[in-house]
Amino acid sequence: MTMGFTPAPTGDHPPGADAPEVVVQRLPLYVRVLAQFEAAGAEMVSSEQLGAQLQMTPAQIRKDLSYFGRFGKQGRGYNVKRLALELRSILGLDRQWNAGLVGVGRLGRAIIAYPGFRPEGFRIVAAFDADSDVVGSDIGDIQVRSINQIKKSVDDLGIRIGIVAVPAADAQGVIDALVAAGIKAILNYAPVAAHVPNDVSIRGVDPVLALQSMTYFLKPHNAGASAAGD
Amino acid sequence: MTMGFTPAPTGDHPPGADAPEVVVQRLPLYVRVLAQFEAAGAEMVSSEQLGAQLQMTPAQIRKDLSYFGRFGKQGRGYNVKRLALELRSILGLDRQWNAGLVGVGRLGRAIIAYPGFRPEGFRIVAAFDADSDVVGSDIGDIQVRSINQIKKSVDDLGIRIGIVAVPAADAQGVIDALVAAGIKAILNYAPVAAHVPNDVSIRGVDPVLALQSMTYFLKPHNAGASAAGD
Repeated sequence: MTMGFTPAPTGDHPPGADAPEVVVQRLPLYVRVLAQFEAAGAEMVSSEQLGAQLQMTPAQIRKDLSYFGRFGKQGRGYNVKRLALELRSILGLDRQWNAGLVGVGRLGRAIIAYPGFRPEGFRIVAAFDADSDVVGSDIGDIQVRSINQIKKSVDDLGIRIGIVAVPAADAQGVIDALVAAGIKAILNYAPVAAHVPNDVSIRGVDPVLALQSMTYFLKPHNAGASAAGD
Repeated sequence: MTMGFTPAPTGDHPPGADAPEVVVQRLPLYVRVLAQFEAAGAEMVSSEQLGAQLQMTPAQIRKDLSYFGRFGKQGRGYNVKRLALELRSILGLDRQWNAGLVGVGRLGRAIIAYPGFRPEGFRIVAAFDADSDVVGSDIGDIQVRSINQIKKSVDDLGIRIGIVAVPAADAQGVIDALVAAGIKAILNYAPVAAHVPNDVSIRGVDPVLALQSMTYFLKPHNAGASAAGD
């Protein structure tokens, strides 16, 4: 869910002050855009150039980055490679994170097969399900475990991230079990607004919610078939 | 991408005034929470109760809803069923929307198989790919078409939504083609910050970005295996 973020303070802040969650959420986008500049051969990049790519004002870019240190030189901009490295280190993207997936139905299997996690350092090392018919079976190189084993597996395998792919009605219970096992970061594919303690991060991945937030803007128009034509 | 939203105005606004995009993005969450209240048998719901579920202040709830009309009665709260119906109508969720998917690799096939779209009124009616080896083949009941046919298919099939599941390097070109075909709403699974004209909505579905925004909060701790124990 994207609500309830601490708003960015409007005044100055000392470097190292706790960055608001909404600022932290933008940093991975900075990392991506910097990778694009690097791939294009750029050595330096200005806050104006970053802002143009991210649809943000240069002042907002400078303010966001100021939470984490002094990266730029007045009038010279940022060193692309160095800023990317430092942001990756700040975000913890320079290491591998082990994740455990709960729910191995159609959605869960698609998540296991998703090719985008590994190259970015995220590895699904365990899968759990409540259905005794699938517990013990293999999906790729992962054996499905009982959800009763979440706590033990989290400890044994160094799992830091929980991925939830169960039906909506089961989601809060699964999330509670992950939290009880010591998990502090949860990626939730179930279409619910789940509750977690303050020290646990949760992000929803929900294509339907994304679609539903766009149809409002389609509504006033007529069917696409009749527009423009050719 | 979730940046660059118009902030909600702080003053009053007349009902019917253009709602900021960030408010529109919250409405589907309201619809979901209302469905939960309805399923639990509630007839009326207060802004306090809605706020508790959505982690928002009651004042923010009332302000959000005031963009779209007068729904509540002072001191009585909202009629659950009526508010849900009206919000669904406002969002255009009371009809079917046809979508076209571009890219039928592993991710695209998982999206076609995703069981969450149909029950919510979103139907993938066409799939496109640049690879002539897959063009003409069937995925479920959808025949894969050439990306050269996007414009014609959008017109013929009344496609209003584009879903992008191509590699990052190809995404902007595909998005440009969808926009040229008259598409005004794009769900983007490619890990890029894409550019679209002002009259086109785009939402990113990006589990890696979501994960990357949480590892920052995991970082100061040690490996999960050593924490707490059991």
